[in-house]
Amino acid sequence: MVFVLKKNATEEKIGAFVKKIESAGFSTFLSTGTEHTVVCLIGNTAKLDIDLVVQTNDIVEYGRRVTEPYKAVNRAVHPGDTLIRVGDVTIGAGFFQVISGPCSVESEEQIIKVAKSVKESGATLLRGGAFKPRSSPYSFQGLQEKGLDFLLAAKKATGLPIVTEIMNQTQFPLFENVDIIQIGTRNMQNYDLLKEAGRCKKPILLKRGFSSTIEEFLMSAEYIVAEGNPNVILCERGIRTFETMTRNTLDLSAIPLLKQKSHLPVIVDPSHAAGIRSLVPALSRAAVAVGADGLMIETHNDPAAALCDGAQSLDLDQFRELCADILKRAAFEGKRMR
Amino acid sequence: MVFVLKKNATEEKIGAFVKKIESAGFSTFLSTGTEHTVVCLIGNTAKLDIDLVVQTNDIVEYGRRVTEPYKAVNRAVHPGDTLIRVGDVTIGAGFFQVISGPCSVESEEQIIKVAKSVKESGATLLRGGAFKPRSSPYSFQGLQEKGLDFLLAAKKATGLPIVTEIMNQTQFPLFENVDIIQIGTRNMQNYDLLKEAGRCKKPILLKRGFSSTIEEFLMSAEYIVAEGNPNVILCERGIRTFETMTRNTLDLSAIPLLKQKSHLPVIVDPSHAAGIRSLVPALSRAAVAVGADGLMIETHNDPAAALCDGAQSLDLDQFRELCADILKRAAFEGKRMR
Amino acid sequence: MVFVLKKNATEEKIGAFVKKIESAGFSTFLSTGTEHTVVCLIGNTAKLDIDLVVQTNDIVEYGRRVTEPYKAVNRAVHPGDTLIRVGDVTIGAGFFQVISGPCSVESEEQIIKVAKSVKESGATLLRGGAFKPRSSPYSFQGLQEKGLDFLLAAKKATGLPIVTEIMNQTQFPLFENVDIIQIGTRNMQNYDLLKEAGRCKKPILLKRGFSSTIEEFLMSAEYIVAEGNPNVILCERGIRTFETMTRNTLDLSAIPLLKQKSHLPVIVDPSHAAGIRSLVPALSRAAVAVGADGLMIETHNDPAAALCDGAQSLDLDQFRELCADILKRAAFEGKRMR
Amino acid sequence: MVFVLKKNATEEKIGAFVKKIESAGFSTFLSTGTEHTVVCLIGNTAKLDIDLVVQTNDIVEYGRRVTEPYKAVNRAVHPGDTLIRVGDVTIGAGFFQVISGPCSVESEEQIIKVAKSVKESGATLLRGGAFKPRSSPYSFQGLQEKGLDFLLAAKKATGLPIVTEIMNQTQFPLFENVDIIQIGTRNMQNYDLLKEAGRCKKPILLKRGFSSTIEEFLMSAEYIVAEGNPNVILCERGIRTFETMTRNTLDLSAIPLLKQKSHLPVIVDPSHAAGIRSLVPALSRAAVAVGADGLMIETHNDPAAALCDGAQSLDLDQFRELCADILKRAAFEGKRMR
Repeated sequence: MVFVLKKNATEEKIGAFVKKIESAGFSTFLSTGTEHTVVCLIGNTAKLDIDLVVQTNDIVEYGRRVTEPYKAVNRAVHPGDTLIRVGDVTIGAGFFQVISGPCSVESEEQIIKVAKSVKESGATLLRGGAFKPRSSPYSFQGLQEKGLDFLLAAKKATGLPIVTEIMNQTQFPLFENVDIIQIGTRNMQNYDLLKEAGRCKKPILLKRGFSSTIEEFLMSAEYIVAEGNPNVILCERGIRTFETMTRNTLDLSAIPLLKQKSHLPVIVDPSHAAGIRSLVPALSRAAVAVGADGLMIETHNDPAAALCDGAQSLDLDQFRELCADILKRAAFEGKRMR
Repeated sequence: MVFVLKKNATEEKIGAFVKKIESAGFSTFLSTGTEHTVVCLIGNTAKLDIDLVVQTNDIVEYGRRVTEPYKAVNRAVHPGDTLIRVGDVTIGAGFFQVISGPCSVESEEQIIKVAKSVKESGATLLRGGAFKPRSSPYSFQGLQEKGLDFLLAAKKATGLPIVTEIMNQTQFPLFENVDIIQIGTRNMQNYDLLKEAGRCKKPILLKRGFSSTIEEFLMSAEYIVAEGNPNVILCERGIRTFETMTRNTLDLSAIPLLKQKSHLPVIVDPSHAAGIRSLVPALSRAAVAVGADGLMIETHNDPAAALCDGAQSLDLDQFRELCADILKRAAFEGKRMR
Repeated sequence: MVFVLKKNATEEKIGAFVKKIESAGFSTFLSTGTEHTVVCLIGNTAKLDIDLVVQTNDIVEYGRRVTEPYKAVNRAVHPGDTLIRVGDVTIGAGFFQVISGPCSVESEEQIIKVAKSVKESGATLLRGGAFKPRSSPYSFQGLQEKGLDFLLAAKKATGLPIVTEIMNQTQFPLFENVDIIQIGTRNMQNYDLLKEAGRCKKPILLKRGFSSTIEEFLMSAEYIVAEGNPNVILCERGIRTFETMTRNTLDLSAIPLLKQKSHLPVIVDPSHAAGIRSLVPALSRAAVAVGADGLMIETHNDPAAALCDGAQSLDLDQFRELCADILKRAAFEGKRMR
Repeated sequence: MVFVLKKNATEEKIGAFVKKIESAGFSTFLSTGTEHTVVCLIGNTAKLDIDLVVQTNDIVEYGRRVTEPYKAVNRAVHPGDTLIRVGDVTIGAGFFQVISGPCSVESEEQIIKVAKSVKESGATLLRGGAFKPRSSPYSFQGLQEKGLDFLLAAKKATGLPIVTEIMNQTQFPLFENVDIIQIGTRNMQNYDLLKEAGRCKKPILLKRGFSSTIEEFLMSAEYIVAEGNPNVILCERGIRTFETMTRNTLDLSAIPLLKQKSHLPVIVDPSHAAGIRSLVPALSRAAVAVGADGLMIETHNDPAAALCDGAQSLDLDQFRELCADILKRAAFEGKRMR
């Protein structure tokens, strides 16, 4: 059950209301949205009379039963879309952003070169891996702190906000100057990492676990929002199925479902899903048409020599061509970039 | 290995060439395309000298090794797209067709009503189930022969060619007046049915098995074409995964993959994939953008009262609205209906 | 809802009872078990008063609501285990049978040789494929009718009852002398084949579809039993998952589940599940321990030269050793062969 | 490529050998087994002449190419089975251990009661969750540090070594007195946690990711061993498939495969795989027969009131009965507990 509070509710009155609720035996958490504060009750609320609560507490606008296990990320709680500002870029419904860059940052020169090129092509955010989760301990693990420095240099050179992946909950101080912190597919259920992400206030790009259901995905977002950080961007990146011709199966049905069930922005990563360069353009076009709020596309200045995931990276010319097409299509869908 | 023959090759010369190949220990089959006849060799061709064959047989245009297990449906064999004519409708690259109608034909009145409406909305083919594969022996099994009669009445009333599902290889005589014969997802590896479909000359709409790989899908098409029927339309309709929020997971990556690997037309059935009406519009738009040659969308005059699959059917007004949007998008992609 | 009739119920009285039920608007089917006849009602029975029916119809022993969609194969309907007699062999709870033989019958000499050897090793039934479902139209499709003749010769030479796969519903007359007719994994939802199998009285060995749920598996068995043939043997043979190291993932949890939910015998095919010879012994031992009523193990006189599935076949010596171990373990579980 | 060193190789000589190899451009790591030290080379070893290395370095016993991406956990590297001692308990080939206890530690009284009972029934290790990974932030997250204290109290009371799950790489100091540290299914690819587990010297019980392939599972074990900790116990606990009747599908084929490919001990957790109490006995019996080195079975003093996973827990009497059966079967397989 959730209670949506009136706009003018003072902190004092909110505190008193929460205290009253908790003394009745419920746990609560506050979800502070852009317009309203919402008080979510956790526990068996079957016997609670919503109308009585609304009538006897003048700061309560209305109450609602929410049967899904996720509350704070539930569209039934916040009907309005969450919009996330990063620099002068807005992510969420009505907008369309293209995030691009290499799987791994390989050198300062490389990342600046890629950043300049993708910016010119139309990308509005730069991605690049500094810490890399690799299934083999003998594979290249990323440039680590140095990779972060190079990303920041690229940000300085181009003005593009940067997105990069965090590996564990002790690393947040290192990511102080990162604009959007990515939580990768293998960490989607790393709950201690999610909780710490909830305590940080930066936007979090949460990738769907490669074998996680949509409900589990929303529950992981719930961990972050319930801990106090409402700035979560969901990212569909392919799920593991029996099909072996593609690396994963991009689940585009998840986009309209997530948009129906949650108010959070949803973007698509076609590069990791397919694992095959030649499929990226068609899947990108489909992602725009299916209603995604953005794309995350891997590019590399020299895919054949990439230290990881070269087979799925577009080169800078291929990206330029694709990005122009994508932005035209996003405009057709009524989306804008600024 | 395949040998593409010159356009003017006479039947006599082709026969002599085939005889020569077979006397060398290979099985062969002929694939008679719209422009060329192709002779496919089955067997270990490792030691065969392609150039020698081309030089010593003047009806041979060129030869090629094809390593995939599918030959006749392989784009490496027929680089040109297969176009299938049904009445005045063309299915294949460059065109876009919308097939619509109810899961089950329920009465003559109903199917005629639906047919008129979907035609007016822009559909160019009518679908409707007469024989229904149902997982329970106690569920409605379709109107059977009577259902076929009602479909034919609807065809007469509207001029729309009809598509309907066959259940086993003894039924082909019953389907004499059907325009496109559908082989359903559970029958994709019913090889005796596929072989008989290959002996019949009608267009076959082959649905992907709900747990079949793309390669298995192409091998099933190969059964039909190898038996002599080149008119196969592939249909992606969702695969079984761990996700339970949708009935199946629509594998849109399969569309560009199938188009790369094969010359056959590829359409998408978003209704059975999702199993949820509200997802059909977004998935339909994505299918257009990803490069499909058409859509198969379930509609019903009264979905709440449908004898099967009502939850995924659009009503006639919803379909009208969607179809207008889809046709505009198909035009944007440079496709035409006639 | 089902009504279990008293043992002494005459056909006349049963007919009258059924007529009465049907005149009340229900469909029915009779399931004639070894001890009782059961009348299953299909339709909405919510308002039917079970007690009233029992009290007012003296041939009714008791009534029961069965909420699962499968009725005739439901253990709630027939609490007693189904036992199937084939020659002097009994299949079902309390017994353990080993079915063995090659994937394909290759010659009369071969199948007789294998039959003699596996019989000596302890197998009680002979399997061998005459009609082979193959994913490629260019693969060996079996010796067909000739293969059946060779199997019958092997039966004559050894006395072993034979099990072989049927491909479509027109073939039943050809299978007149076959002891157990196998319906393969790709045909598990070929409903016309299931219905015809229900009209035939021979034991049917029904393999689980490689991507079918346990409930779908039971529904396919229900098709056969509802049509009048109670002699169905269920066979778990591996399901399709993301794991690629084995051909399929043997789902041994299905055995105790199927035994809980149904009264039908359940056997295991470890050869097709694993696709790797070296795993067959361990999986066979596990199948005995988990409660299976038998095993179906592929053997070949010369696996390296087998026309199909050689990689998973045991040679005759390996089978002898495994079979001795298996029979000792079956005895440990309190099972007997005769 | 790996080089197995002679038993009497001194540290000095080993150091010199490693230096030589590394100066030739390879990375190395040392795997110090119970009998031999093994030097694994990482990098492209295609041009290296094994014989030359063996002949020119007298501490080298023999060399071998290992093509699998996992080296240190590969049976080709260490043919002998890894045995792990915990207190007076040995885990590995030839032995069979039963680990039992509740999903969550709920109170000191509870865990001591369960520990005494399962010890009496034959369990040789006690499990219990103190930190619980839960998919909802609102579910009980375990008693945390207090739970660890209660486990230690139960260890003191019974002498049973304890197994409990760690959540992140900062917690190792808290687990100083824990005997076996469990890494859960959702953390199987938490590489920072794996690396830290490699630096700790305690036995690690590594659960297979619920959607991880066998190769990925071995690569995660490789992370731990490559970092210096050879004491890894693999645990199969069910994989995610399309089947919904069980929580996961227990992949028993993985046991003989893991034993073939690796020298590490392998145990089975049937409770989490099935999620249904009534399947646990049959699956436990199958696990013994398939060749597992032990079982991990959930028990609870009062399953109906358990704070988590009650539906899959055996009560103490059910466990007593099962454990007696299991130990008899383990003896039948030639396994011993001490």
